[in-house]
Amino acid sequence: MANAKSNLLLERVRKISNEQYAGVQDVVLAYSGGLDSNVIGSLLEGIGIDVITVSIDMGQRAVHTKKPPFAKKHVNVDARKEFWECIKRGIKANCTHEGHFNSGGISRPVMARVLAEVAKKEGVEAIAHGSSGIGNDQLRMENSLRVLAPELRVLAPVRDWDLHRDEELDYVKQQKMDFDAKKMHKYSTDENMWARTVRQGVLVSEAQPPTDDMFEWTVDPSDAPAEKEYVEIQFENGMPVGICHIDENRKTVCETKDVLALLNKLGGRHGIGRVDAIDDKIVGLKTREIYECPGAIMLVAAHRDLERLTLTASELDVKKYIDHEWNKAVYYGGWHTRLRRYLDAFIDESQRVVDGKVILGMSRGSFWVVGRKSAHALYDARLGNRQTSGGAWDQKEARHFAKLYGLQDTIAYMIVD
Amino acid sequence: MANAKSNLLLERVRKISNEQYAGVQDVVLAYSGGLDSNVIGSLLEGIGIDVITVSIDMGQRAVHTKKPPFAKKHVNVDARKEFWECIKRGIKANCTHEGHFNSGGISRPVMARVLAEVAKKEGVEAIAHGSSGIGNDQLRMENSLRVLAPELRVLAPVRDWDLHRDEELDYVKQQKMDFDAKKMHKYSTDENMWARTVRQGVLVSEAQPPTDDMFEWTVDPSDAPAEKEYVEIQFENGMPVGICHIDENRKTVCETKDVLALLNKLGGRHGIGRVDAIDDKIVGLKTREIYECPGAIMLVAAHRDLERLTLTASELDVKKYIDHEWNKAVYYGGWHTRLRRYLDAFIDESQRVVDGKVILGMSRGSFWVVGRKSAHALYDARLGNRQTSGGAWDQKEARHFAKLYGLQDTIAYMIVD
Amino acid sequence: MANAKSNLLLERVRKISNEQYAGVQDVVLAYSGGLDSNVIGSLLEGIGIDVITVSIDMGQRAVHTKKPPFAKKHVNVDARKEFWECIKRGIKANCTHEGHFNSGGISRPVMARVLAEVAKKEGVEAIAHGSSGIGNDQLRMENSLRVLAPELRVLAPVRDWDLHRDEELDYVKQQKMDFDAKKMHKYSTDENMWARTVRQGVLVSEAQPPTDDMFEWTVDPSDAPAEKEYVEIQFENGMPVGICHIDENRKTVCETKDVLALLNKLGGRHGIGRVDAIDDKIVGLKTREIYECPGAIMLVAAHRDLERLTLTASELDVKKYIDHEWNKAVYYGGWHTRLRRYLDAFIDESQRVVDGKVILGMSRGSFWVVGRKSAHALYDARLGNRQTSGGAWDQKEARHFAKLYGLQDTIAYMIVD
Amino acid sequence: MANAKSNLLLERVRKISNEQYAGVQDVVLAYSGGLDSNVIGSLLEGIGIDVITVSIDMGQRAVHTKKPPFAKKHVNVDARKEFWECIKRGIKANCTHEGHFNSGGISRPVMARVLAEVAKKEGVEAIAHGSSGIGNDQLRMENSLRVLAPELRVLAPVRDWDLHRDEELDYVKQQKMDFDAKKMHKYSTDENMWARTVRQGVLVSEAQPPTDDMFEWTVDPSDAPAEKEYVEIQFENGMPVGICHIDENRKTVCETKDVLALLNKLGGRHGIGRVDAIDDKIVGLKTREIYECPGAIMLVAAHRDLERLTLTASELDVKKYIDHEWNKAVYYGGWHTRLRRYLDAFIDESQRVVDGKVILGMSRGSFWVVGRKSAHALYDARLGNRQTSGGAWDQKEARHFAKLYGLQDTIAYMIVD
Repeated sequence: MANAKSNLLLERVRKISNEQYAGVQDVVLAYSGGLDSNVIGSLLEGIGIDVITVSIDMGQRAVHTKKPPFAKKHVNVDARKEFWECIKRGIKANCTHEGHFNSGGISRPVMARVLAEVAKKEGVEAIAHGSSGIGNDQLRMENSLRVLAPELRVLAPVRDWDLHRDEELDYVKQQKMDFDAKKMHKYSTDENMWARTVRQGVLVSEAQPPTDDMFEWTVDPSDAPAEKEYVEIQFENGMPVGICHIDENRKTVCETKDVLALLNKLGGRHGIGRVDAIDDKIVGLKTREIYECPGAIMLVAAHRDLERLTLTASELDVKKYIDHEWNKAVYYGGWHTRLRRYLDAFIDESQRVVDGKVILGMSRGSFWVVGRKSAHALYDARLGNRQTSGGAWDQKEARHFAKLYGLQDTIAYMIVD
Repeated sequence: MANAKSNLLLERVRKISNEQYAGVQDVVLAYSGGLDSNVIGSLLEGIGIDVITVSIDMGQRAVHTKKPPFAKKHVNVDARKEFWECIKRGIKANCTHEGHFNSGGISRPVMARVLAEVAKKEGVEAIAHGSSGIGNDQLRMENSLRVLAPELRVLAPVRDWDLHRDEELDYVKQQKMDFDAKKMHKYSTDENMWARTVRQGVLVSEAQPPTDDMFEWTVDPSDAPAEKEYVEIQFENGMPVGICHIDENRKTVCETKDVLALLNKLGGRHGIGRVDAIDDKIVGLKTREIYECPGAIMLVAAHRDLERLTLTASELDVKKYIDHEWNKAVYYGGWHTRLRRYLDAFIDESQRVVDGKVILGMSRGSFWVVGRKSAHALYDARLGNRQTSGGAWDQKEARHFAKLYGLQDTIAYMIVD
Repeated sequence: MANAKSNLLLERVRKISNEQYAGVQDVVLAYSGGLDSNVIGSLLEGIGIDVITVSIDMGQRAVHTKKPPFAKKHVNVDARKEFWECIKRGIKANCTHEGHFNSGGISRPVMARVLAEVAKKEGVEAIAHGSSGIGNDQLRMENSLRVLAPELRVLAPVRDWDLHRDEELDYVKQQKMDFDAKKMHKYSTDENMWARTVRQGVLVSEAQPPTDDMFEWTVDPSDAPAEKEYVEIQFENGMPVGICHIDENRKTVCETKDVLALLNKLGGRHGIGRVDAIDDKIVGLKTREIYECPGAIMLVAAHRDLERLTLTASELDVKKYIDHEWNKAVYYGGWHTRLRRYLDAFIDESQRVVDGKVILGMSRGSFWVVGRKSAHALYDARLGNRQTSGGAWDQKEARHFAKLYGLQDTIAYMIVD
Repeated sequence: MANAKSNLLLERVRKISNEQYAGVQDVVLAYSGGLDSNVIGSLLEGIGIDVITVSIDMGQRAVHTKKPPFAKKHVNVDARKEFWECIKRGIKANCTHEGHFNSGGISRPVMARVLAEVAKKEGVEAIAHGSSGIGNDQLRMENSLRVLAPELRVLAPVRDWDLHRDEELDYVKQQKMDFDAKKMHKYSTDENMWARTVRQGVLVSEAQPPTDDMFEWTVDPSDAPAEKEYVEIQFENGMPVGICHIDENRKTVCETKDVLALLNKLGGRHGIGRVDAIDDKIVGLKTREIYECPGAIMLVAAHRDLERLTLTASELDVKKYIDHEWNKAVYYGGWHTRLRRYLDAFIDESQRVVDGKVILGMSRGSFWVVGRKSAHALYDARLGNRQTSGGAWDQKEARHFAKLYGLQDTIAYMIVD
């Protein structure tokens, strides 16, 4: 009876594929080793399509590097360096959207580029990805692939076949696939060096607290160590280029690479970076996702602080809009657009002065800016201080300024009252 | 020699005042009991102007209700209810600007209104306030007063006489004024029920960590209790109307007033709400200020979360701009403008669906959203879940959507490449 | 052979409809009397669906009020008053988007409401409209109907059956329908009291000049009379409430209704209001459309001028954004959204002072503002005039203002240079 | 008695200058040959300051190249090429602000740069300009000079001495200066190759029509020739690089320089480019100004049209904001700011595809786009045409798109109703 069910699924898949995937002989499949990519791969093979699986190292802790049985061939690609370049663009744009850190928006275009490259090298005519019809990943993958490999066909079997998680779980059981279905049952995850994302499962109730077993990068703030820890992050042109901290032997250690990895480790130890957000999907749904992203949250906060020190109020005002448009575009699949490039031209020009260092303190779930310093600071301690300003600044001159500033709006107010 | 110095100051003040304050007989003075208001009052009396001091209860812990010696009369006004109405407007606008909570922007207009009322009642022809020429308070007071009492003259002696803190401290010593100069020497503070602000002193160095003695509302996160605490905040029309929490006897207690006071108390106990921000002043300076505002930070976060649950992506997108304009206008002294009213018309209309409850957890310096619930939620657990969506939503339909969405931008991308 | 073709079309239509329109017994059809609505109606009848045609008077010059042969019943509805209310909302929002006047955006929601009402009254279960899959009208009709009559099914046969104009023209010939196919062949038009729109046909070439026979409301500017003509338009709360002009007997005539109709007549006589615009369609295409809209172009220009007289610079700045969002939302089918209502709340509040009169001159294709006057003007002739300002305004006070304004940005400029 | 008045003015000037201009020995004066610059120069000499006058050729029809009697030295500078570079930046930013073409915003920074250069070359320690305390020119000059020559002092005698036009006119009469006071009495003008500006005088009444004698570049539309004229403007990277038109001998003539001059000439002949606008001044006043700018109005319109052909809807949406911020910044004196540079980085990147040609027709006061063509057009005649699209585009696919697009907002609408 089990196999009957499994055959029914294969039948449905075959019927839809005859219509939509007609003529596809072989495919490159984005392979994470999770439920979706295993089921998709197996079903694609089941309907007679040759599958080449690709595992992409985006900095997640475990990369599935082994060829699965259904695959004709398996390819491993290390995309960490390329992804880090995208992350740095994100930091310059204060990478946030509706409370989260745009992890899917900046990671999927890199994965799409890798898939396109493998497909071209392998002479394959189609690419398959595991995005559903609910989320924005389908746009991020398909808009990127349309640009990067317009000659290739793109399949999204989860969406096109309308696969549900329960039938996928039945399928792996019936097919006796080498897959730990138990662990997967509760929720779905996505992970890269920027953030770990948890969705679905119990989280579909918006009022339900996340459960302890969802968190793998961060300890519960209550379990974090009592002593505070400090780091000093160096920025150049708006990008993190180094970090110093005091190690267990009370020695100051500085390094210039893996700033993000170190912040993830330290932040995780102090219970920093748990985010619970209601996201909007382009198809009109809202979903709830839990993120662990200690490095991301601290880098963006430090970067913002440095911008407030080095950019003028007018610059901050316009950049707030620019950042919002950048993150909106990227969130909805627009990494490979000219608009993103125009926005980056503004951002790059603005970041020429965003350098210096920011000191952060961390303790038991929270972090805070302790101080900041920049050669391009617009902050002059003597000027803003009535005690010491002396000759540099004459506050009496503000009298007429205050009289004229806002004059029109206050006159207008009285007209209508 | 001390008196000589003091006389020199009086001389300078008299000279400037002859020019700028000519003809002023009496004045209503905003009196906080701090250094500036004591020195100003004494100097105004010294040049022959009758002073009526006004203490305004804005929810600060200690209100100076006693007539100071230099005053002809003293008036106490309780403005807490009126201020709470402004705070609620602020919460609906997610009251933040460049990382802080706009405390001066929303409090000064209330104080200006009170001063105008007292001046009219007392038949006085001028109002004096303690704003310097550096900050934005001068605009908030003067723009408000120009609207509320255009017939009155407005004096800002700190700015107009260019008073420096060190000479003020000398003055109170020489005049043997009843004033604890020691405590004041380190920094200057401002306090109301929305936030406590610390500025000047050691803080003028942007890289210097704040010192422990600056904090009065909040404990150090490291000293906060180990156990977590939870509250459930109720909102109606975007405004907090009630709060429930579990008290020390493990009983759930709910109340509908003093939501802010309770959050300030609980948050303070857990070390929540310390903010260190670089602010922009309209005259072109940047200053650094430390805030304690546990209630403000949690109310705004809870409100934002509820908006993400109940407003559409398009509504959130435009409201982000509206909130920014609202806070910018209010920050730069525009409470009493027609523009603020137009923005509030948008905001009020948008808040009709922002109701429900948000549950917050607190622990050792951090707080987080645990869950949320609203009768107007646009979130439907069944729809966003591939496992259960069944008939309600057909993800296959997203295929053509994904094809068309972003089509123009990806075609355009290829044109220029 | 002709009938063979016609039968082939019917066959295609039947096949698609079995899939998509299964179970539909009767339908209310938006009937303009044009090619699309005649062909759709006939085909719907041909596949066995009862058709009730609805002609909606939106102020176009000719309304088809006769029941077509294929219809079971015909209904005429006068929606001019309701449409005028929408137009007034549009004028307050300076109704323009990418160079045109948003005619489809403000007219379709009214038509949708009429169709929904007729369908409910007639007990019909479906509504059919003639929008194609290319333009934004499909969104305007379907988004409106989803809100106004969620229980009804909505059919868009031109899109769903993929009807092409050439096969439609074949069809009417073969079916010997009472329809002047010759005239229709060149281009497609849409008309209401706000604008006449011409599209398709020769216009699909973006470089081709429009031909003379496209214009029906306006004379060629070269053929306009030599003498200038003037009108004075009265506004209240941002809406036109009256108009005065000098008639052929040199008498000043004023009227309070049909302001738009009179401006269309006068403007048309003077060759005003021809617009040639490249529009963006939501599906990612650009199309070219020619508009005739003399009243719209003059009302919006006069309204803008009055806003510049009565609103402050800050208000104009924010309202520019609000207008843009309003027009974008409406252009892409968002009339029946909460967002449009929030924006209208801002707009309505802002228009309380936008009253007074604007005098326009017209001559040979162009019009211009001659002068304007308002009781709420922020313009004071004495203040802005160095010759007469005298005591009212002391320009010397601007010295310190000029020193401080822009100070931060100029300091910042030097830092990076 | 006349001389008494003149002496009184000199007395006032001397008194203020002792205070504000103390120590200034010599000055470079921006010299237009108009009333203000002649009176200022004479008065500066009168109080013992050496004056070097500078005439700057910005493309105005007449440049005063003769040394005036009060000057120690006179310098002529041709800044047309430099100004044209700024104008091209302006065209890329669709150079408009509140209905006018930002002529002062883009011309004053060039003049400031020239003045700074002359001052440095001549070893002079101060620069004087004729801006009043009412307008924004004071900001444009002073913000630019603060950046370009921070070591120089900057004097604005009209503002600082509070000079009124009537006393200036008295002064030139009494001093028997070589100056045609009659012509000047009616209004004040400013002219460069981008626009001619008329202000003050009779124009201070907002309801008064401009008089015929105000116009010097353009004929009255009624007097324009009957026959239409056409031009084809070539753009590269968003900038005009050539123009073709049919000359009097019916020959097509093309040229690549002086596009602006030719458009000014042709437009002037056809009565195009008269603008009547209410402007906002930073000090809170509104003023009314009349512009003649046929070239500017046609170049910006042609550029906008080409952008609508070559940029995507998303790009147009964001660029609208960018252009607005650019023009606002420049209008209020921010040419020499980093913000303007960041905005220009966005703009430059966006203009890489804005090339091709736009054909304009002109006749009796009006002009219109006849057609446009670009190798980077996003417009494909076949795609947007239901008649011919055939296989390239399947409108049936829009069905699901239309269903999902706007879904959230329509669901939301029903929730609150």
